[in-house]
Amino acid sequence: MASNPTPTLRVGMIGYAFMGAMHSHAWRTAPRFFDLPLHPELTVLAGRDAAAVKSAADRMGWQDTATDWRSLVEREDIDLIDICTPGDTHAEIAIAALEAGKHVLCEKPLANSVEEAERMAAAARAAAEQGVFAMCGFSYRRTPALTLARRLVEQGRLGDIRHIRAQYLQDWLSDANAPMTWRLDRTKSGSGALGDIGAHSIDAAQFVTGLKISGVSALLNTFVHERPLSGTRVGLGGSGAGDGGTGQVTVDDAAIFSARFDGGAVGVFEATRFALGRKNSMRLEVNGTLGSLAFDFENMNSLEFYDGTVSSETAGFSTINVTEPAHPYTGNWWPAGHGLGYEHGFTHQVVDLVQAIADGTTPSPSFDEALRVQKVLRAVEQSASADSGWQHV
Amino acid sequence: MASNPTPTLRVGMIGYAFMGAMHSHAWRTAPRFFDLPLHPELTVLAGRDAAAVKSAADRMGWQDTATDWRSLVEREDIDLIDICTPGDTHAEIAIAALEAGKHVLCEKPLANSVEEAERMAAAARAAAEQGVFAMCGFSYRRTPALTLARRLVEQGRLGDIRHIRAQYLQDWLSDANAPMTWRLDRTKSGSGALGDIGAHSIDAAQFVTGLKISGVSALLNTFVHERPLSGTRVGLGGSGAGDGGTGQVTVDDAAIFSARFDGGAVGVFEATRFALGRKNSMRLEVNGTLGSLAFDFENMNSLEFYDGTVSSETAGFSTINVTEPAHPYTGNWWPAGHGLGYEHGFTHQVVDLVQAIADGTTPSPSFDEALRVQKVLRAVEQSASADSGWQHV
Amino acid sequence: MASNPTPTLRVGMIGYAFMGAMHSHAWRTAPRFFDLPLHPELTVLAGRDAAAVKSAADRMGWQDTATDWRSLVEREDIDLIDICTPGDTHAEIAIAALEAGKHVLCEKPLANSVEEAERMAAAARAAAEQGVFAMCGFSYRRTPALTLARRLVEQGRLGDIRHIRAQYLQDWLSDANAPMTWRLDRTKSGSGALGDIGAHSIDAAQFVTGLKISGVSALLNTFVHERPLSGTRVGLGGSGAGDGGTGQVTVDDAAIFSARFDGGAVGVFEATRFALGRKNSMRLEVNGTLGSLAFDFENMNSLEFYDGTVSSETAGFSTINVTEPAHPYTGNWWPAGHGLGYEHGFTHQVVDLVQAIADGTTPSPSFDEALRVQKVLRAVEQSASADSGWQHV
Amino acid sequence: MASNPTPTLRVGMIGYAFMGAMHSHAWRTAPRFFDLPLHPELTVLAGRDAAAVKSAADRMGWQDTATDWRSLVEREDIDLIDICTPGDTHAEIAIAALEAGKHVLCEKPLANSVEEAERMAAAARAAAEQGVFAMCGFSYRRTPALTLARRLVEQGRLGDIRHIRAQYLQDWLSDANAPMTWRLDRTKSGSGALGDIGAHSIDAAQFVTGLKISGVSALLNTFVHERPLSGTRVGLGGSGAGDGGTGQVTVDDAAIFSARFDGGAVGVFEATRFALGRKNSMRLEVNGTLGSLAFDFENMNSLEFYDGTVSSETAGFSTINVTEPAHPYTGNWWPAGHGLGYEHGFTHQVVDLVQAIADGTTPSPSFDEALRVQKVLRAVEQSASADSGWQHV
Repeated sequence: MASNPTPTLRVGMIGYAFMGAMHSHAWRTAPRFFDLPLHPELTVLAGRDAAAVKSAADRMGWQDTATDWRSLVEREDIDLIDICTPGDTHAEIAIAALEAGKHVLCEKPLANSVEEAERMAAAARAAAEQGVFAMCGFSYRRTPALTLARRLVEQGRLGDIRHIRAQYLQDWLSDANAPMTWRLDRTKSGSGALGDIGAHSIDAAQFVTGLKISGVSALLNTFVHERPLSGTRVGLGGSGAGDGGTGQVTVDDAAIFSARFDGGAVGVFEATRFALGRKNSMRLEVNGTLGSLAFDFENMNSLEFYDGTVSSETAGFSTINVTEPAHPYTGNWWPAGHGLGYEHGFTHQVVDLVQAIADGTTPSPSFDEALRVQKVLRAVEQSASADSGWQHV
Repeated sequence: MASNPTPTLRVGMIGYAFMGAMHSHAWRTAPRFFDLPLHPELTVLAGRDAAAVKSAADRMGWQDTATDWRSLVEREDIDLIDICTPGDTHAEIAIAALEAGKHVLCEKPLANSVEEAERMAAAARAAAEQGVFAMCGFSYRRTPALTLARRLVEQGRLGDIRHIRAQYLQDWLSDANAPMTWRLDRTKSGSGALGDIGAHSIDAAQFVTGLKISGVSALLNTFVHERPLSGTRVGLGGSGAGDGGTGQVTVDDAAIFSARFDGGAVGVFEATRFALGRKNSMRLEVNGTLGSLAFDFENMNSLEFYDGTVSSETAGFSTINVTEPAHPYTGNWWPAGHGLGYEHGFTHQVVDLVQAIADGTTPSPSFDEALRVQKVLRAVEQSASADSGWQHV
Repeated sequence: MASNPTPTLRVGMIGYAFMGAMHSHAWRTAPRFFDLPLHPELTVLAGRDAAAVKSAADRMGWQDTATDWRSLVEREDIDLIDICTPGDTHAEIAIAALEAGKHVLCEKPLANSVEEAERMAAAARAAAEQGVFAMCGFSYRRTPALTLARRLVEQGRLGDIRHIRAQYLQDWLSDANAPMTWRLDRTKSGSGALGDIGAHSIDAAQFVTGLKISGVSALLNTFVHERPLSGTRVGLGGSGAGDGGTGQVTVDDAAIFSARFDGGAVGVFEATRFALGRKNSMRLEVNGTLGSLAFDFENMNSLEFYDGTVSSETAGFSTINVTEPAHPYTGNWWPAGHGLGYEHGFTHQVVDLVQAIADGTTPSPSFDEALRVQKVLRAVEQSASADSGWQHV
Repeated sequence: MASNPTPTLRVGMIGYAFMGAMHSHAWRTAPRFFDLPLHPELTVLAGRDAAAVKSAADRMGWQDTATDWRSLVEREDIDLIDICTPGDTHAEIAIAALEAGKHVLCEKPLANSVEEAERMAAAARAAAEQGVFAMCGFSYRRTPALTLARRLVEQGRLGDIRHIRAQYLQDWLSDANAPMTWRLDRTKSGSGALGDIGAHSIDAAQFVTGLKISGVSALLNTFVHERPLSGTRVGLGGSGAGDGGTGQVTVDDAAIFSARFDGGAVGVFEATRFALGRKNSMRLEVNGTLGSLAFDFENMNSLEFYDGTVSSETAGFSTINVTEPAHPYTGNWWPAGHGLGYEHGFTHQVVDLVQAIADGTTPSPSFDEALRVQKVLRAVEQSASADSGWQHV
């Protein structure tokens, strides 16, 4: 590719578990299917365990490795830092990177607290003035069906929005003997189902409707308080320990909250990893005065759309197979009907991020947008700890 | 109801098994929900076993009983004869009834042979000149979703029709030990899956599209050639015998055929009672130049409609919940979304039949229409017995 | 039917709108398909407008009419009073009937206030000691799929229940110009979506799981505060007035609440008549430690069941076509796969009520069970009016 | 990757349209997610237009380019030749490559005639004796849901198979003004819907069931006989010409055939690109004595499985979300529920091919297996041209 005249975007990535593998794939794949103004180079991968990070870099296609994330911030040959570590490390890394003039892509949720998120957002605003940009990785937005949903709302096809219902249902913790992971340790993850998957629902609901949540009433629940320390669950971050014993679950297993949105819409949210049989059922329904939408990630290539302006003789929810050239992103992939998968949202995220950087504009979701999600998460926790009393965001 | 000024339509029914129970319910129920020009009276029920027919009449609400169907033909106080017996008896009863000036409702398939069907159709044509009418009970037409399908085709919403695919899948014979019934005895039933359920598919395909089948190529297959004589299967006609032994299955277990329709459409049909897991999956799909339809009786309150004139951004199969006031028949029942069941097609059949009689017009499907189905059945059998060679209808 | 040796159950019914038509059909139809120990007679129909009630009685098959419900309570030839009037009249009628020794079937919600419901429940308890019984008409319980759901929970197929999500979504008020009806007038209906349809969800959730709601946090919302007085909506109770002007909507348009159940399960409920495109989507999902269930009334003949004890290679939500002889009620109807409709739940309600009366046992749902639903409704309203703060039931 | 001790597999690919882009992605991606015994190198890409092939190679990640496919056969540094050209060139290229000791991956259908396919299969058999292997690209087999389907049949979960119904429905030619492409020119493509997509159905049906088609009866139809020459359809091969005029369609637009399989099963197949609204609906249903399967590529991450050994109370088609570690291939990707797309079948194809080469075994589908599909295609055409008369394969 030496002859490629496209300027490069040299990426350093921190973390190489589930999200690291996914981001690597996205960085590698985006330029193969999209005309990017900057060509990503997988320059260096960082992780604490030298042997493990080397092995991961070989597999994932990174040119170099490092064991200290700070070295990436200091390197001249890095343009962007991609943060794929647990939430407790986001603030420190992102702020250091932005201050060093590196663009940042940071996995969600943005941080483990509003205070951290506010500092990160401030750093991002300051960096933007220097032409350095930050994005938070709410990748579900880039599922073509959800991007199309947003487009239909923008076009006014739903009219005024009245109802939003968002559920994010998984079941990988349903077994009380599933092992402890960092995702169940509040000091690492900030919260449980709420921040891990509920954050996606909050972002998706606000993104699709263009409305902001103004207040919530919430209930959090933990079903299993103690789990075995040993064992590893593929892909979702098992604990390293394998010597038996149990660990305390210090996060919510399920989060339920009602919400009001600016403009009068009402919403109801639920996030759980105990919905036995639901593997990754990230559902969103929106009802407006003119139309309605329904989505379930388990059928991620489809969007259900009800056009209320059609006569009642033929009105019904249409299953749009979101794989047409007319749909977001899909024209760069395969012919209609040849569906995409989970990973494509991450590739689209890279596409949009690289384009924004080349354009000198703040990508979306910005750290400010992610901060807003963080404030909803906080309000949910505050309401839950105050007898579900209403909490303004 | 003595004060009811509506003239009556005195009904005599022959047969009181599955179809007899269904027809009784329809006769009783139709005037409760529809404004009928003639009020049906359940005057007499006929069957060979005096005690059984008496018990059935009590349960089903018939005023009188008879053990010889001929007495119904002779009675002055009968206006219409409803034939719910196996196919081998249809011709004799229907022709006698029509000649005696009784209207006739005859269960499908019209007869066990084209020759019988032709005589019946001739009798019906002659009777019609005297204001006496005959209808064949292809009740699926009156499922609101299929009536709506017909309406959409008539409105031109599908454009020119190219593809028809019709499957009628059941599984009640999948168990090789399910007992012998008259439906598996060619002398009683005429054929197997072909006439029992395939006939519905043929009628529905021709009804919905308004096109006639011009030729077929077919394959018939029998999976289980011998079955135990004992045992009774609820509702679908077990043999009377219970003394063990086996009976020979002399009909097809499965029928598959391709078809050409007048106008250039092509079709593919399948009927079987061995599709394990499919309980009553009567499916119909139609693709035209402007739109498409899909229906499955297992979701009988829904019709799928693809409007090809919608932009590709939002085009998709719409699931129409066929329970709106704008839909056929449904405005006389419950509010939208409060679905109907299998039996309602039979009630609608009574509604349309009574209306046609009061109007002095031939109801549809007429015996001529049913004869056309019979000719397709014959062509299928002829092709199947001639190495699947093409057979004109 | 004069020769029928079965003792009769002489019914007087009050009200003849949507619910009256439905109950009439159920009383007429139940003895045709089920062996009832008492034969229902449709003895007298009561309503204030003499001409209208006469016309309705003719259509629905009632022998006599009355314009004052009190006359039914006084008549010797009435064994059971069926109350199909708006909620504000339930208490007075039901208590009078029970005190007069008449069995009672009362439409839901039981009353418009907990105070009324408590008096009704007390009257029912007193009457039961005299062998006089009362039932509240939560008919959805008798949808075969939901009765099967209950059975599976009882069998332990779900293990310990963790999650319940219940949505009741309709859209008939989505149009801001849909006319005012008694259902939107708090003095008649007690509440809006909450009592009209949310009550069904509460009953169904408690019935299926066998668990009681112990507390709630709620949000109520009214989207359209004023509506035209004229016009009538078929089946759902238009106002009589047709002289223009507008009426104030004094009830909730949407109700959202989270709940805790005895035993540790958490639930989330939503009821609305503004979910554009959803006609009668009464959904219930239950997740347990061993299995899960999902139901949507728009596919009322199906129940989704996830058996968590199946190996992950083949585990998945099974779509049970609830029409087999092995399923509740369905063996008395048509062959497998030949679906039932909305009305059959009401027929099954009659079957179970008549059986309980004959057995001398209190039918379910008793007035005490319905009182419990009423208390949940009250707690929801209390929480909603107290900033969504937690409210014990 | 210089330090990678894995031996390399140097690939030369011919053709760079839709299938070329897909295969490139698969070669690049497979070693990132699977432990391959040989590391693929994208060594050289061949195509007739030097500039176009250079541009494609840059985009798709190939190191070198060539304008004559023969040069690849001659190069020492090529281990495998991947043929992504139209069917009329397959035989010449594949035979030359095999004779030169290059492994071959050849897109489907294997050839445009049985005669060509037989020569290719003979060449493959001869090469295999030298440790040189050939595979035909029926990639749908590697969709995890279809691989799982095969596994369930092998495990005996379906019992004896009775029914197979396979439909492959697309709609990209439904518009009569869609432009002419090489896929509609018999000299290039061999046949129309039959070979393009029907071949996939034939392979999938035989693969999943493990049964061979022994005879067929067929009907072919062309709806649109002439099409504009100009215009290009993204991804599916528009003609190069843009100067107006029309071209003759010389292939079938739709293929319908019934089939018998060894062992007594019967099947029905349909392939069309005129099923308006169906984008890539490759459906397969199989009914056996113990279980049934259903698949639709438009929901490619799901497999429907009916286990007939479950009691009728809870039996139903289970929707298996085929993304579990226990499922074929999926454990190497994302967590359960995070679905895959169309392209992953091609990546899995590379994985299995590379493994077979390393193992020194003939990969599946071998050219002999593909020849068998070719013979079915020929029998279909022969039957269609002989009045649908039965044709043994």
